[in-house]
Amino acid sequence: MAIRIGILGYGNLGKGVESAVRQNPDMELAAVFTRRDPKSLQVRTEGVRVLSADALETMQDGIDVLILCGGSATDLPEQTPKYAALYNVVDSFDTHARIPEHFDDVDAAAKRGGKVGIISCGWDPGMFSLNRLYANCILPEGEDYTFWGKGVSQGHSDAVRRIAGVKDARQYTIPVPEALESVRNGENPELTTRQKHTRECFVVAEEGADLARIEEEIRTMPNYFADYDTTVHFITEEEMKRDHSGLPHGGCVIRTGKTGLNREHGHVIEYSLKLDSNPEFTGSVIVAYARAAYRMNREGMSGCKTVFDIAPAYLSARSAEELRAHLL
Amino acid sequence: MAIRIGILGYGNLGKGVESAVRQNPDMELAAVFTRRDPKSLQVRTEGVRVLSADALETMQDGIDVLILCGGSATDLPEQTPKYAALYNVVDSFDTHARIPEHFDDVDAAAKRGGKVGIISCGWDPGMFSLNRLYANCILPEGEDYTFWGKGVSQGHSDAVRRIAGVKDARQYTIPVPEALESVRNGENPELTTRQKHTRECFVVAEEGADLARIEEEIRTMPNYFADYDTTVHFITEEEMKRDHSGLPHGGCVIRTGKTGLNREHGHVIEYSLKLDSNPEFTGSVIVAYARAAYRMNREGMSGCKTVFDIAPAYLSARSAEELRAHLL
Repeated sequence: MAIRIGILGYGNLGKGVESAVRQNPDMELAAVFTRRDPKSLQVRTEGVRVLSADALETMQDGIDVLILCGGSATDLPEQTPKYAALYNVVDSFDTHARIPEHFDDVDAAAKRGGKVGIISCGWDPGMFSLNRLYANCILPEGEDYTFWGKGVSQGHSDAVRRIAGVKDARQYTIPVPEALESVRNGENPELTTRQKHTRECFVVAEEGADLARIEEEIRTMPNYFADYDTTVHFITEEEMKRDHSGLPHGGCVIRTGKTGLNREHGHVIEYSLKLDSNPEFTGSVIVAYARAAYRMNREGMSGCKTVFDIAPAYLSARSAEELRAHLL
Repeated sequence: MAIRIGILGYGNLGKGVESAVRQNPDMELAAVFTRRDPKSLQVRTEGVRVLSADALETMQDGIDVLILCGGSATDLPEQTPKYAALYNVVDSFDTHARIPEHFDDVDAAAKRGGKVGIISCGWDPGMFSLNRLYANCILPEGEDYTFWGKGVSQGHSDAVRRIAGVKDARQYTIPVPEALESVRNGENPELTTRQKHTRECFVVAEEGADLARIEEEIRTMPNYFADYDTTVHFITEEEMKRDHSGLPHGGCVIRTGKTGLNREHGHVIEYSLKLDSNPEFTGSVIVAYARAAYRMNREGMSGCKTVFDIAPAYLSARSAEELRAHLL
């Protein structure tokens, strides 16, 4: 029998999870849950029910793993513990500073319910975290570097959209090539924020808006842009639609370190991603971990887990024998 | 108390393990075991005993994890099951076709002894295998590529050394840049053996040897060179010593795949290594997994494990809380 997946929240990530489920024959999408009026939502997979989030109170017999596709700011801190008491759950909680607290909340609820709750799953946190951990364990004496992009930062795009006179905006985060090259050469540079990434904004302005003022507001925006070299391009709505409708992203985690009795040998470990669709890739990672949640729970485990706690074989639909024969 | 490591076999890999242990403050090298006369061996870490392999029959109270540094052809198939009945063990068994059989032998012995035996640990098999597994689970529809090099292949170097008239030889395996670029661009090329790697040999010939004959014998050697474009350089002993005394290696595992309702989005996952010292890096991976073997056994686990079966957190000396706070 297929693993029955529920999705709560049908934005970009929910849709990414939906398409990932369709690529995994051992899974099926049982239902999409929404806090809006279910009638207002049209899902793209035929025959899948759209239900009110309220229905989750009593759906335990129909859902094996519930995937929470809300935001980290307000949705997940409330939803993940709530539903971890009722279902195996997976979320992509990414507010780094609050992970310990979120872990504790989900752990208590999941243990109470006898379920597995996997938090902070995706590529960062997620696959990037895993690669930081493995590389740190292999090379205890070394330096970590993470670069993001080239890719669309939705948080930064939203920040630009909030400026008066801005109709639409897209922000790309771009690693500085010289910094990346220096790291890859094992030169262990100390890099400021400005030296690691640049930011490029494409902006559709309202008719008659003061472009110089908008550009100045972007470049000087604290936290988001002030510490970076930022380029601003004003474009038309048509150009925005034609050239910037996707959500590509990516980046790399690099650890450089030394080994040998006299630290005479250098090593570079790099994990890199080039993604045409950030939400679909994130959804694909989450779905693999949904399989792990299901299988670990079937083996009697419960509580909160992160990617660090999950043996890789749990992610695969293939047997341990097959994995050893074909992938080891 | 530190984890007490034993090393059986003090060749390049044994020395790599020795230097890795010194970089991990929670471990100590308890003894090096050899099948030769212990008096003939000088280890580089002060105060470490060199003992006959026979002593392993009765050393269970002094060794927490025994690391087996012999060869895959004849040493490990016999040694790993033998010692897995007595100790937690880690090996780097890399004969792919025989992994299932080796797993079964080690599993039976380790379960009998109540110990954990980790096999096929290093970078390939090992970290490359892990990355193949993770990437396959995330992108079920896609293609896998593995490239090795630029680096020294000891098997191929040995093969050249066996040719009459060859005094010394070093063989480098080199990925074909165009193939690598095509894969990274997501073009999903179908590549022959010749299209993926070239081979470059540096040879010191005996005085008066027939260089043309040696070169011809190398280029046409079945399995090792016949399917590759091979370049042969004759050099002096001094040049060999000066330019080719290291054992660098590396390579990359790439998976490209599609997501989306209509497979409209492409993704590239790449894991790459650039290593100044193949045996020291391999030793560093093995030592991290030795920690995992020790900890899993302390939790009551036993039997044979591979990198697929081991939750990443077991590799780290840091607590789960610390890992979540700093690396997730």
